[in-house]
Amino acid sequence: MKSADMSLNNAKALIFDVFGTVVDWRTSIAKEAADMLQPKGYDIDWHAFADAWRRRYQPAMEEVRSGTRPFTKLDILHRENLENILPEFGISGLSDLELDHLNRAWHRLSPWDDSPLGLTRLKKKFIIATQSNGNVALMVNMAKHAGLPWDTILGAEVCQAYKPMPESYLRACDLLGLAPSEVIMTAAHNDDLKAAARCGLRTAFVPRPTEHGPGQIKDLTPDPSIDISAISFIDLADKLGCP
Amino acid sequence: MKSADMSLNNAKALIFDVFGTVVDWRTSIAKEAADMLQPKGYDIDWHAFADAWRRRYQPAMEEVRSGTRPFTKLDILHRENLENILPEFGISGLSDLELDHLNRAWHRLSPWDDSPLGLTRLKKKFIIATQSNGNVALMVNMAKHAGLPWDTILGAEVCQAYKPMPESYLRACDLLGLAPSEVIMTAAHNDDLKAAARCGLRTAFVPRPTEHGPGQIKDLTPDPSIDISAISFIDLADKLGCP
Repeated sequence: MKSADMSLNNAKALIFDVFGTVVDWRTSIAKEAADMLQPKGYDIDWHAFADAWRRRYQPAMEEVRSGTRPFTKLDILHRENLENILPEFGISGLSDLELDHLNRAWHRLSPWDDSPLGLTRLKKKFIIATQSNGNVALMVNMAKHAGLPWDTILGAEVCQAYKPMPESYLRACDLLGLAPSEVIMTAAHNDDLKAAARCGLRTAFVPRPTEHGPGQIKDLTPDPSIDISAISFIDLADKLGCP
Repeated sequence: MKSADMSLNNAKALIFDVFGTVVDWRTSIAKEAADMLQPKGYDIDWHAFADAWRRRYQPAMEEVRSGTRPFTKLDILHRENLENILPEFGISGLSDLELDHLNRAWHRLSPWDDSPLGLTRLKKKFIIATQSNGNVALMVNMAKHAGLPWDTILGAEVCQAYKPMPESYLRACDLLGLAPSEVIMTAAHNDDLKAAARCGLRTAFVPRPTEHGPGQIKDLTPDPSIDISAISFIDLADKLGCP
């Protein structure tokens, strides 16, 4: 890793990946699905349900990235993906209201324990903003639910481009009125960070070793190209000199 | 005025005009201009300077609204307008850095006394977002400076349309995932509120009787079509049942 002092001195803002980095989507989605569907008599592996739903996330965005489909907000992609996986798990007969409630479980994801306090400390010294593929309403509602003190919501819908497209990172910097070298992309995912680095942003890695459950093998350690690594947002705040 | 109970029951979000409604641009700009230019020997009416700068605001945006010019962020329009008025006041010889610093006085406007606390209370019950013609960086920096606890920054740059264009209000609602009838536009300006109402939004008027100085004659009282009126953001929080 490069010296943090060398490359991060000019940083004015941190922008964050959210699903997996700030919130624990897998546990939250499994719990919400179980809460709604167990009382209806369904008895399935709820974490497998969450994984199946999430597995359709990248392919759905890829249709937009490739230009096959105009920009479509993630709430709509999530809903289509939900309706596609329900038959795989033998689930049927949900009302439109129930489908909408379950789809909006993504608006109610729980934060990792260190997220609210870590972000609150980072906010004292830096602008903090989401740079998620989640749409604005999803991120605003999640922030209210999970106590995430964002200065503003950026990301795919505002930038009209899904990560890891370069436009996504570059438009976020432009909206903040900052050079890419003044912005630190923060994520638990090396691929996201490497894409941001190719656009000139600085990078911070915070591992979330149980994002994908107990058997996770990906993203346990930072790529050598990453500028700074921390074990939590609290640790990141310490390392970046936030009170 | 209509009964607040009748039309505001469904409200989930308040979106705010900012210049004049949340912050006192005239006093702030006059002070910043004086702070920079008095030591250089200039002795002019600093409030007249602020008024002259602001007078070029609507015509500059009108070029964008009319399609004569592609969408251009307010920081750039402000800078052009500044360079246009300086000769009118006999001011010359400022460096690019000084011009940039003075232009960014709009990022450092001071709030009206009731704004930080009133917004903090309104945020407990509602989503609160800017719906200003100011660009994202301007609004984010102002929020840090003035202690304005926005949930997110919307407005002209995110919506790619300057108020009072209908797209501006309607895109803000769409980004929040809300129907216009679930969103209250809040402003000290009747024209802004009437434009929002034509798009189906609810409206709240908070007078700022000294925005334009001691002789102000405009926007002292709400238009009869406005849904709710309050004398301050604290009063608005009271009337909307915010703890």
